[in-house]
Amino acid sequence: MNPKKSDRRRFLKNSAALAGLAVGASSSAIPATAEPAPERIDDLHAYGERSHFVNSVRIGSINNPERHLENEPVAFGLATPLQDSVGMITPSSLHFIVNHGFESPEIDPQEHRLLIHGMVDRPLIFTVDELKRLPSVSRFHFIECHGNSSTAGAGGPERIAKSATVQQTHGFTSCSQWTGVPLSLLLKEAGVQKSAAWIVAEGADANKHSKSFPLAKALDDVIVAYGQNGEAIRPEQGYPLRLVVPGWQGINNVKWLRRIALTDEPYMSMLETARYPSLKLDGKSRWFEFELGPKSVITRPSGGQRLPVTGFYEITGLAWSGGGTIKRVEVSTDGGHTWKDAQLHGPVVRKAHTRFSMAWNWSGEEAILHSRCTDDQGTVQPTMAEVAKLWNTDPETFRKTSLIVGNFNAIQPWKVNRDGSVENALF
Amino acid sequence: MNPKKSDRRRFLKNSAALAGLAVGASSSAIPATAEPAPERIDDLHAYGERSHFVNSVRIGSINNPERHLENEPVAFGLATPLQDSVGMITPSSLHFIVNHGFESPEIDPQEHRLLIHGMVDRPLIFTVDELKRLPSVSRFHFIECHGNSSTAGAGGPERIAKSATVQQTHGFTSCSQWTGVPLSLLLKEAGVQKSAAWIVAEGADANKHSKSFPLAKALDDVIVAYGQNGEAIRPEQGYPLRLVVPGWQGINNVKWLRRIALTDEPYMSMLETARYPSLKLDGKSRWFEFELGPKSVITRPSGGQRLPVTGFYEITGLAWSGGGTIKRVEVSTDGGHTWKDAQLHGPVVRKAHTRFSMAWNWSGEEAILHSRCTDDQGTVQPTMAEVAKLWNTDPETFRKTSLIVGNFNAIQPWKVNRDGSVENALF
Repeated sequence: MNPKKSDRRRFLKNSAALAGLAVGASSSAIPATAEPAPERIDDLHAYGERSHFVNSVRIGSINNPERHLENEPVAFGLATPLQDSVGMITPSSLHFIVNHGFESPEIDPQEHRLLIHGMVDRPLIFTVDELKRLPSVSRFHFIECHGNSSTAGAGGPERIAKSATVQQTHGFTSCSQWTGVPLSLLLKEAGVQKSAAWIVAEGADANKHSKSFPLAKALDDVIVAYGQNGEAIRPEQGYPLRLVVPGWQGINNVKWLRRIALTDEPYMSMLETARYPSLKLDGKSRWFEFELGPKSVITRPSGGQRLPVTGFYEITGLAWSGGGTIKRVEVSTDGGHTWKDAQLHGPVVRKAHTRFSMAWNWSGEEAILHSRCTDDQGTVQPTMAEVAKLWNTDPETFRKTSLIVGNFNAIQPWKVNRDGSVENALF
Repeated sequence: MNPKKSDRRRFLKNSAALAGLAVGASSSAIPATAEPAPERIDDLHAYGERSHFVNSVRIGSINNPERHLENEPVAFGLATPLQDSVGMITPSSLHFIVNHGFESPEIDPQEHRLLIHGMVDRPLIFTVDELKRLPSVSRFHFIECHGNSSTAGAGGPERIAKSATVQQTHGFTSCSQWTGVPLSLLLKEAGVQKSAAWIVAEGADANKHSKSFPLAKALDDVIVAYGQNGEAIRPEQGYPLRLVVPGWQGINNVKWLRRIALTDEPYMSMLETARYPSLKLDGKSRWFEFELGPKSVITRPSGGQRLPVTGFYEITGLAWSGGGTIKRVEVSTDGGHTWKDAQLHGPVVRKAHTRFSMAWNWSGEEAILHSRCTDDQGTVQPTMAEVAKLWNTDPETFRKTSLIVGNFNAIQPWKVNRDGSVENALF
């Protein structure tokens, strides 16, 4: 932190000099006597690993030409294996990744700084340890790529294949408990000027990924996060600092966060202008969409799985909405003709994954499974036909034109065949 | 599952033959085409790792003679680094471990079975895949060793040293979201006989760890869990199956669960008779204590840490109760003379860790930090003096006699010295 500025901070006004080690920032603060001698303890136990019988992994592709910008040295998307998911948390090791133009940087947290500047009264620089001394919040939030589940988005061409798994159709969403400092608190310390209307967040990756969004959101529920699921954020998720912008397109959740500039207009950075707008049928693009609509998907049974026998199954899945809290999930086993309310597994948290389930006896006949959610704004997840209509077209044209549609949230149908196999039935 | 029994099950009455692969049980059900070619994707991304700058680890000891039974080939306890914790979740890699007499077994989930027998109408055998087809619950619960934070329990002799860290004083508690089948559902399928009053749960470890507890608890909120924090339970936590017995002493949460017997009396197994009763001053033991009382501890600032400068700090910690939900946490910075309500960070869930925090300006003078919680039963966490009084003694005698006290939940004081160092001030 710039010592010249610290005396003017209201929140930190009693701080003398904040440089140096912050309390609890490092386990090196633990007396060395507490460390076990190597011969007394198996190193495997120090930080445990999963069973070698468990092989659920992220999958995806690197440098897919359909999603690769010309000036990107590397770009990759890796999806969460939702078919194996339980509960509401995504293990940090399996959180989806979309990186544009770079591998995850290795950042020394002692060297890292966060700068807040631009249209503020008091530009501020924070070390990570200084941020950890400030009032924190810990909140469950999903992060979702705006192209997730789109027919031509992050899911890639595999998304519309009958063989698609739920990892391929919907794997670009994940949910963690994020811990950090409310951005509103930092902005209050900096003193936002009246002319400011947008913020631009920038990462410390080689590509300096940056993204603009309106100041009102920054003052609402955005977190400058250093913690994920009870420990430090993982490198692929932005270690040591990332933005969490609840309910808004993943691209806003800037990783390896190093700079926040207050501005009077959007920055028009490469990705927000060249890659992330949604192309419409008339050739025009929709810019600066943010909030992700209500979406749900059945994760079990789902594409590529197989019901071994007739009889009882729990149908289970996830629902989430950028608009708020999931209020209701309905499940149909007859292609949307009749619906039953699924059970929601608490805690049901705003802008977080909600696990739902419903008991089902499979007779051995063909069945089409749907899930449909409603959020606390009353917004209901649409069918594929309804989404196509919004775009002034029909599902078949929609499929053929491979529209680059962001925020695609149509109901996902899974078809259970007589042999128990399950396949993608979106089209 | 025994096919002779399946037709008599009420819940699974429509199941034909349950042997074989259950839906979604294995990611081998995903089409091989979905797997990326090795040259296209860095294996490191398939299941991610933490930053090499993060070095928070479990610590403890193996074969500590003070806690080692004569016939135990190996015994070890490894504590969670609570000083680095954020939010309510313990990362599965850092969940505390207490193993008596064995290393964690490596269990092939396809070979594993759960037997329910004894005083039941219909003995049942389940594969792991069969359990995954049944109605599930996902719940946040802490698991705590009954000796956690005791002056002579799991914390070991380091627990009362001034140099003790919160990992050494309180590290034998952890909190996960556990996913599995309610034990009550399985018992209903088996048909509990009227004469049954207890259950005995047995693990598949070399030592066949077993533990008895009353049937009423089994019918209440116990889970036969296969999931932890969104993925399969870790080997050290009982992969592929463990019992989760919410709010009760850790020893009941049998890992590598393979057998549940319904009985009319406790089994009097080795650990429940020889190791886990609490020794009283008069030489008598208290047997079959179960419910853990309300407890809280400040995790930052805590023992071994150092405040680098005067000024603002967030005091933060964890509170939990086997009796139910945490209703209130108070923090004192003057050794218990005055108290202020801390903020509880939701979701506040029954029988789970609750994160609390309070803003504090450190003046540079000596300060004694306390936290005190109250649960929804109205039970208030006691002081060390109050606990000693319950045992008809005083704190100093209590300390000297090193009573083997289970369920010790006295308020933990941390002393902040003028130089910013923080030390254990329980005595």
